[in-house]
Order: sequence, then structure tokens, then C-alpha cells
Amino acid sequence: MSKPPEAPDVGELTPPNRTLMGPGPSDVDPRVLRAMSTPLVGHLDPSFIEIMNEVQELLRYTFRTDNTWTIPVSGTGSAAMEAAIGNVVEPGDTMLVPTNGYFGGRMADMAQRAGGDVVEVDAPWGEPLDTADVATAFEEDDIDVFGFVHAETSTGVLQPAVPELTSIAHEHDALVIADTVTSIGGVELKVDEWGIDVAYAGPQKCLSCPPGASPLTLNDQAMEKVLTREEDARSWYLDLSLLEGYWGEERAYHHTAPITNVYAIREALRLVAEEGIEERWARHRRVAGALKAGFVAMGLEMNAPDEYWLPSLNAVRVPDGVDDGAVIDYLLEKYDLEIASGLGDLEGEIWRIGCMGASATPKNVSLVVSALADALQQQGFDADAGAAIDAVAEHL
Amino acid sequence: MSKPPEAPDVGELTPPNRTLMGPGPSDVDPRVLRAMSTPLVGHLDPSFIEIMNEVQELLRYTFRTDNTWTIPVSGTGSAAMEAAIGNVVEPGDTMLVPTNGYFGGRMADMAQRAGGDVVEVDAPWGEPLDTADVATAFEEDDIDVFGFVHAETSTGVLQPAVPELTSIAHEHDALVIADTVTSIGGVELKVDEWGIDVAYAGPQKCLSCPPGASPLTLNDQAMEKVLTREEDARSWYLDLSLLEGYWGEERAYHHTAPITNVYAIREALRLVAEEGIEERWARHRRVAGALKAGFVAMGLEMNAPDEYWLPSLNAVRVPDGVDDGAVIDYLLEKYDLEIASGLGDLEGEIWRIGCMGASATPKNVSLVVSALADALQQQGFDADAGAAIDAVAEHL
Repeated sequence: MSKPPEAPDVGELTPPNRTLMGPGPSDVDPRVLRAMSTPLVGHLDPSFIEIMNEVQELLRYTFRTDNTWTIPVSGTGSAAMEAAIGNVVEPGDTMLVPTNGYFGGRMADMAQRAGGDVVEVDAPWGEPLDTADVATAFEEDDIDVFGFVHAETSTGVLQPAVPELTSIAHEHDALVIADTVTSIGGVELKVDEWGIDVAYAGPQKCLSCPPGASPLTLNDQAMEKVLTREEDARSWYLDLSLLEGYWGEERAYHHTAPITNVYAIREALRLVAEEGIEERWARHRRVAGALKAGFVAMGLEMNAPDEYWLPSLNAVRVPDGVDDGAVIDYLLEKYDLEIASGLGDLEGEIWRIGCMGASATPKNVSLVVSALADALQQQGFDADAGAAIDAVAEHL
Repeated sequence: MSKPPEAPDVGELTPPNRTLMGPGPSDVDPRVLRAMSTPLVGHLDPSFIEIMNEVQELLRYTFRTDNTWTIPVSGTGSAAMEAAIGNVVEPGDTMLVPTNGYFGGRMADMAQRAGGDVVEVDAPWGEPLDTADVATAFEEDDIDVFGFVHAETSTGVLQPAVPELTSIAHEHDALVIADTVTSIGGVELKVDEWGIDVAYAGPQKCLSCPPGASPLTLNDQAMEKVLTREEDARSWYLDLSLLEGYWGEERAYHHTAPITNVYAIREALRLVAEEGIEERWARHRRVAGALKAGFVAMGLEMNAPDEYWLPSLNAVRVPDGVDDGAVIDYLLEKYDLEIASGLGDLEGEIWRIGCMGASATPKNVSLVVSALADALQQQGFDADAGAAIDAVAEHL
């Protein structure tokens, strides 16, 4: 027998104690962390079946939907995204996707891998889709599925007038898939009332739940399309017609659910229910409003105009002469505070500063504003810290 | 504004305190549970990059490989399985899969969804593949990828002579994908020495880690095939050429890693390293050997002959006249003890009793043997509890 290799000498887990004000994950409530240390039951245990039912009920409440087909997908937000697109888009289908941010591009990639064709509706990064442009796109092409991003994490833009968009799609018999990753639990989102057929989300944003089980909901029309596909979905793991056996009536084995992540999202969603979904939206507006007021008061400019402002993800323009990366590093090293840089077209032009879930608190806003003012002063930008702190206090 | 629906009234998380001796998940060490309650850092935090490196190093140790391409996939074991098959199998490729258990069938399904053709090498459920049959299959068809199951969770059979199987495949220029879900960390597994090109695993079996981040390793030849594909892999989420950007040199954003699950697998793998991989294999043989001796002494029959016995998953034949489901329910209700029924061809014929990781302990063996004897006596089967307990004690 050969000699075993030396076992790696890896020490105790001692990550730094960050305050998470980037684009997600956000800070996690201690109750959710504690739920994750709960010993496991089996994924087919009768007690777990009950837990699954509770999670589905809580997800419906949070999505504002009555959809039967409301589940946590066993993976991070991108898994829920691909479960939506990869099941609803069939080979030969045409999907309309937006170009105004990073995640529209990802939608296109996933639709093409599913065998679909893609057409685009354009808008600049940092602006929402124009309803008229969407209507024109539907006139010009025979579109089966329309995807849009409700809250663009890459640009900090909230898409307004969602019911108008879904109406256009439905007039053309298309299904609507909404990316609600950064809106769920943080800004107003009404899946049923707004006519959204399919919505997916991430747990690690405004739900403040560690990533690993990700919200997805489909209405009956969307699920009927999924269940009557001619060809199997291209991923077995994310095939909703198979997951139907586990999350539906039968509760038969498909794959081993990520039990601990289901515990976690259950507790995170209980916190949503306890707070009340509308009160939670109001808290995000109030707390992020104070954050925005602080930025403006210290002399910074928001990337999005107020009418498209996304409370959960604040895109702040990097002032001329300031090194965006140096500010990020300074905040991380000096204050254990995470914020993020821009992506894609906005790389180097903005910072992305989240205000999500358990991170959306007065104390975090106070820290971000004062720490950022310090960082900017280090870079030679004359940030007015006093005015910023006054503005924050006034808005809270 | 419409009135919000009533928030669901879901109580505190209070699952029963099970002892997990089914096919997985297994009991989780308290150190791993505690790691899961650690506050999160961001998935691009410099400290998380270091944690990723440590997990990769620990996974290499556990797989007994030097493969650079050794990562935890962001999902449960089936996600790692589809990451392996969906990337290595290209449209038009032919994959050889076994028919001797549930998971060979899943391999076939995934290969077909990837655009591959499937040919089968037959063996009855409950028996391993015959090397000669594999050689014949390679003579008869032009096979690009050969998949086999090292430890069949559905039948409790350990595939012997792995180096012979991989040699046959390599003589025909095929790549070998091994399902090591129920072998990793529990029974001898030597990825490099045995010539396995790709191996995937589950964390919730002999590693005793909650499911959610799942081991995968590919050698350079396999990764070269993945990186030179003509067509993109059909899943964006599981595309290893994209994941290369996150887990490789660049550490660029692909998707948000399931941070807490990475913390968990790090701690679970630290426990493997502390115990020593060969000592851990020996513990499973010793403790499961006692379990098997107890079953035989009480008058039960193992489904697999000793030479194919899989210590981590013991398939025990249901005696004539005994209701397998009633026994399972009795153990769960009276003893908070989980064991499982047979699957597929062996449904109703066997129980599947795991002995994995933190569940592979003398106290659990003692519980299983005495509780099962009780359950069998309830069913009118004259189980010799005294002899079983003596046999267990003798083997521990």
C-alpha cells in the first residue's frame, strides 16, 4: 500500500467580521445563522415535508403570489434563473431580453443554451427599458418569452411600469420571466397583480439568507408550457417536470435537497412575515433613502435618477480623480466594510452599495456614510462628512 | 393600494432529533454545524479566496488527486454529477453507462440531455460490472466517455477492480467519469492512482457535510476536452469553462458561491484530514463490519456478497412476511432512527442502512441493531437480538 500523502494543515475557520453593503450577500440575521446549525433530518423525512410546505407558503407570501409552483431551487440565484429560462424556453422559441445591464446578457446566454433564439430590446446601462421600445420589439418579432430585470444589480436601476410590460407580452401570447433577485423582500413586488408569469430570485440580497436555495415561482400557464415540452429540458438537475415529483403532491425522490439551506430560507422568510412584507419595503425605502441623502449631501452623484432609484442597490458615481478600487480596499481594510465596484459598461464609473435586508439598518448607513467620507478624503476628494451625517439623521 | 395578504404563521424550527442511518444525509459533526453559523463574507472577499484555496487543497487530499481542477460545485451531488457529464459529454459523443443500479440510469439521462448517445453495459441490480463485459462493450462501440458507479447507493455494491476498468477505457481513448458519491471519505478511493479522469461526489454521505456544495475533480485531459468544446455546455450554471474564471487563477465573478456551504465542507474536510484518510476508510470497514455482523447474527441476509460489500451502504434483505415500510416507520417513530427502503428493481426487497462519516460510530451501530431486532420481532420475525449484540461487540 502506498504511503498516504500528508494531510493538509488547515486551521480553524476565522473569517473577518465584515459589514456587507455590497451587491450581496448581505448581513445575515443571527436567527438565520442559528437555524443553519440545526441538526439535519432526511430529505424525505415526514418532518421535512412539513418544512417544505411551510417554505412554499412563506415564499408565496413574499412573492405576493398564489402560484402552486413556488419552490426554493437547490442552488444559488443563477440556478433559479437557469431553472426558469431553461425550462420555459424550448428549442426554436424566441426570447426577448434587455441590454441595459449585466443580467440581461446572462438571460440571453441561458436562452441560447436552452436552444432558443434571442432578440434584444435596447436601453443604455443605467436606464430602465422604455415601454414603447418593448412594444416595438413585439411588433417586429414573433416572441415567445419576454425576460426583464426588475432590479438591476449591475446598475442600481429599478424597472418601473411592470404591469405595462407584462400586458404587452400577454397581448402577444408571450410568457414573462422576471429577474427579481435584488427586489424580492426589498422593494415592492407583486407577482400576481403585475401579471408576471415566472419570477426567480436570490436569497442573499434583501432576504438576507445565505445563498444555496433560491426562490422560483411559475403560474399555471408557465408550468403548463414546461410540462408539455416536446423535448426534455437540457439540465436534469434543474428540470422542473422532474422537480414536480419532489415538490408536488408525490414528494418522491429527485435529488437530495440542501436541507440546511431550506432551514435557513425558512427562518429568513419567517423574519419577512414577522415584519410584514409592505413594512419591509417601506423600511428599505426609508433606510436606503437616508443612505442616498448622505451620499448626495457629501457631494456625490447617484447614477440613476430618482424615478428609477433602486433602494436595495445604490449606484454612486465615482468622482473624477478618485481611484474606485483604492476606496473599496480602504473600506475593507480599515472598516471591515464591503462595497463593490461597477460591472461591464459601468466598470470604474460607479460604486455599488447595497442596502438589503438585515444590512438595511441605521447603524450600517451611519457607518457607510462616515467611512466613505473618510475614504474619499484620503483620495483628495473634499467629502462633506458633517452634511452627510446630518442628512442621514434627518431621513431616518 | 390593495391590502396585503395575511402573513403565514409559521412557528420556530423544531425538527425531530433523528439518528441518520439511511443512504444520506448522515449525521453532521457539531463542528460542521457550528461552522455553518459563521457570519458571511462576500464571495469575492480576499479572505474567501483563501478559504476557496483551502477547500480545494482538502478536496485533493480526500480524492487522492493532484488535479488542479478540484472544486466544490454550487449545488447538491446531482449538480456535481451533471457538471461532470454535461461538460465532458459533447453532442455526438457516445457514453457507456452501467445498468446495475439507479445512478447508471441517471448518468444515461444526463448524457442524453447533453446531446450524447448512450450505450449500456449490463449487470443485474445488486452486482458490480464485469470487467470482461466492459471490454466487450468497448470492442463493439466507439465510446468517448465511460461512466461507472464506484459505490452504488441504490444497491449497496462496491465496484471492484477500478484500475482494470479505467485501463480498458484508456486503451480505447475514452475518458472515465466515476460516481464516488457514496465512496468518498468512506471507502478506499484513489483517483490518480486508479486512472479516474473525472470524479464527482456528494458531501452528505461519508463526509457528513450538509448538502449544498459538492466535490468534483477533473484531470488535465478531461479539462482540455471541456475547454476545447465546439459548442457551449448546455447549462450556464454548471459550465466548467466559466467556473474556471472563478475557481482558477482569475477569481472573477461567475455566480455567488454558497458561502456557508463552503464553510461547512471546509470544516467537514478538516475532520477528514485530522482523522487521516486511510484511517477513516479503516474506521468505516470496522464499524460497518460490526453492523453487518449484527445483521447476520440476528438472522438477516446481506444483499451483496462479501467481496462487493459496501461498508457505507448496507443492503439488507427484507425477510419473507415482513413489511419493509412498517419497519422503517416503526424505527422512525419509536427510535427517531432513519433507515431507507430499496429503490427500483430492489424496491420492497432490501433495506438500505447507511454507515457514513459521523454516523459510523459504535453507538449508532448498537442502536440500529437493537432497534431493528425490536422492529422485526414486532413483525413476527424471530430476530436473535442477543446474538446480534454479541456479534457487534466482538467486531468493534
